[in-house]
Order: sequence, then structure tokens, then C-alpha cells
Amino acid sequence: ELIGAAARLLTEPYLAGRSVLVTAGPTREYLDPVRFLSNRSSGKMGYALAAAAAEAGAEVTLISGPVTLEPPPGVQRVQVESAQQMCDATLTRVVGMDIFVACAAVADYRPTRQAAQKIKKGSQGLTLELERTPDTLEQIGKLADKPFMVGFAAETEHLEINGRHKLNSKGLDMIAANWIKQGRGFEVDDNALTVLWHGGKVELPMAPKIQLARGLIKLIAEHHHAKDSA
Amino acid sequence: ELIGAAARLLTEPYLAGRSVLVTAGPTREYLDPVRFLSNRSSGKMGYALAAAAAEAGAEVTLISGPVTLEPPPGVQRVQVESAQQMCDATLTRVVGMDIFVACAAVADYRPTRQAAQKIKKGSQGLTLELERTPDTLEQIGKLADKPFMVGFAAETEHLEINGRHKLNSKGLDMIAANWIKQGRGFEVDDNALTVLWHGGKVELPMAPKIQLARGLIKLIAEHHHAKDSA
Repeated sequence: ELIGAAARLLTEPYLAGRSVLVTAGPTREYLDPVRFLSNRSSGKMGYALAAAAAEAGAEVTLISGPVTLEPPPGVQRVQVESAQQMCDATLTRVVGMDIFVACAAVADYRPTRQAAQKIKKGSQGLTLELERTPDTLEQIGKLADKPFMVGFAAETEHLEINGRHKLNSKGLDMIAANWIKQGRGFEVDDNALTVLWHGGKVELPMAPKIQLARGLIKLIAEHHHAKDSA
Repeated sequence: ELIGAAARLLTEPYLAGRSVLVTAGPTREYLDPVRFLSNRSSGKMGYALAAAAAEAGAEVTLISGPVTLEPPPGVQRVQVESAQQMCDATLTRVVGMDIFVACAAVADYRPTRQAAQKIKKGSQGLTLELERTPDTLEQIGKLADKPFMVGFAAETEHLEINGRHKLNSKGLDMIAANWIKQGRGFEVDDNALTVLWHGGKVELPMAPKIQLARGLIKLIAEHHHAKDSA
């Protein structure tokens, strides 16, 4: 807590008096009590964003999927496992928030059925039926008093095209797009972001995630204030 | 290394001059560059077994799926990700080993196809075709000079029946069966094991995994020596 307070003093309080909700990490979608579908998100970028927002003076709530990270100082953490739990926790807590940063790699699909007992293996293959998980961003986008919304897009191709498509289709104010490649994006400490908004963009070059997070939080604060005072 | 040497001195060298191969952790079976099928294994039991075998004087090789644990002192670790990689690494290294402890929670199924690019989500569901992964235990069981083989069975029902079935069908010398329940089996520091062999069993009651591992390594050493000198 003392370290958090000291770190906050080192940064200009761009977000003093503001409330920020951040989601981070992967989700797990269980087939049975043991097996699940997940993804390579380590939660590092979302945790760095929560830390950077707290440093900038915000009241920060972090909704986190299963990761092995400690919550940053001064940040209130809520732990969830599935996309449904992530969605429910987010909808409950987003009300009244100034800024929402959706950094979690929420599973898009989950098994239609979850077996109560461990599925015994047979000699043959298996067909797994998957259904879409709830679209939290879409639901938040429909709120009467919606927050400043920042999304993430991790792409293996067409970075800016896919990023702009998601910015528009989800009604976001800003999106941070990044490449998934060998040694980039997931499970690494460095990354680079292409930050897009309506009518503009900026490249945040390869840097440690905490440094990138500080850059992105500063951009978010500027655009939020501009929109807030418009 | 010094700590490992000290720990080894605290234990009787049941396995001095013996070579032990241990597998640990889950595997990941990728659908695309981001999404995978996995399971709740933390690797703690396998790492504890590798540590206990090294303490007992064995030369230990640990083949590990993706976990966040440090390798125990004095243990040679090989890191893998998929069931196929786990199988290949195991078959390469098992030759000439005295004892093989298969503690990894190797995926039984993997997607039949792995997409080169991230699968874009649609509005509808998705059908995922899965195929069986290679059966490493079965392949090792067919080796002319096979090691003393110890398997694990994590079950949600019929613990001893399912355990004995696997003991026989895989040609194992011993199997350690454990319940998967809330707060038991995976991702926890304590566990209990029902250890089965042909014509016998012993219950190792709830204890920290390192203590259980020492108990199981002692049992393995006794049965291995009995078989070796028979």
C-alpha cells in the first residue's frame, strides 16, 4: 500500500476522482470438472493497466480471470473463472464507472453442455458443440449512462482493419490493437500497441507492459476528459 | 543445489543409483494460435514427486507441461506444451530408466485441425472435432525393457474400480488414484492418494503434496526393488 502510494506520487494524477473498471486475464470454459477451453492471456497487460490507472489517481476495480499475478497496490480485485462470471461481475460493477477498459481475453465460445462427471475417454474421436458466450461489451454499449469504453484486439492478421471494425461494431471510444506473434502479445513482458479511435491513431512502440500501460492510461485520460467536457 | 543436497541427506537414499522419469502438469491442445483445450493440473504433485525422488538419491528427469513452478533442485527439466510433445519427449528419454512415474494430466483429445490464424467468431455456435492423442503409457508398456511403471488416475466417481481398470489395461506396476472434488486433487497443496498394485493397496491420507510424494516414492522404491530382485 505504501509502495502504491509512492508510485502514485510519481505520476501526474490524470485520473484523480475518476473510477476505472479493468478486466484482465483469460476465462475458462469447462467441458467437465477437469477439462476446459481457455487461451494464452497471462493477465499481465490488464494488471499493468490497473496499476497505471491507480498510479494516476483513479479508484480502480480489477475483474480478473485465473492468473498467477498479485493484485496491484490500491486496486480492488474480483476473481472470476468463466465468461459468464466475467460478464455478470462486469455488468454489476460497471454502473457509475467513468472508464471501462476491457482487457480480458474472454472466451468467445463455451461448450453447450458441461458434464457433471469427468468424461471417460473412448477409442474414437469426439465432437464438441460450442455456443457463443454473452457479449459484455455489447451489453455495456447499450447502457443509458455508459462509461468511456476502451477495448482490446489481439490479431494474427489485418491489425488495423480488424481493430477499426471492432471499434465501430462495439461502439467503443478507443481500441488498443496488438499483434499475436512468436514472442509478442501473450505471455511476454513486452508488447507494442496500435491505439485507434474515431478519426485518429497512435503507435505505442515495443516496451515493457507497465510502460505501455502508462502511455495508454494517459491517452485514455486525455480522450475521456475531451469527451467529458464536450 | 545446496538446499537439494541437504534435503537429500535428510532422507534415506532409497533410490541411490536409480534413474527416475517423472511427467507433470497439464498439456495444451491448440485450436488456433490463441485458444487451447487444457485441464486443471497445476503440476504440484509431479514436481513434488520429482523432488522426493531426487531427495531419495535418484537421477531425476522431469518432463513438464506449462506450469508456473520452478524445477526442484538437482532435477533435469524438459518443458513441453502439447500431448504430442509430451509423448515424444517421454519416449525419447524413457529408454534405460529404472522407474517411470506418469503424473502429467495429458490431454486425451486434441482438435483434429489447428487453424494457422485466429478463428474469427461468428454469431452462431461452432462444432469442434476432436481426435485422440497418442497413448504414451501404452507405447511404453510395449517396450522390451520397460521400466517400473507408475500411473495416476484422477476420478470424480468409482475411484478404486476406475483405478484398478487403468492399472490392468495399461500394464502398470502401481497406480495412485485420487478424488477430484471441491478443494481436492487439482490446484491445491494437500491431497490424499489410494495407491493400488496387483494384489494390494494402501491409503495415503490427506497431507501436503510433498509429504504424500515422499510416501509414494518410498512405496515405489520398495515395490521396484522387490520386482527387480525377483
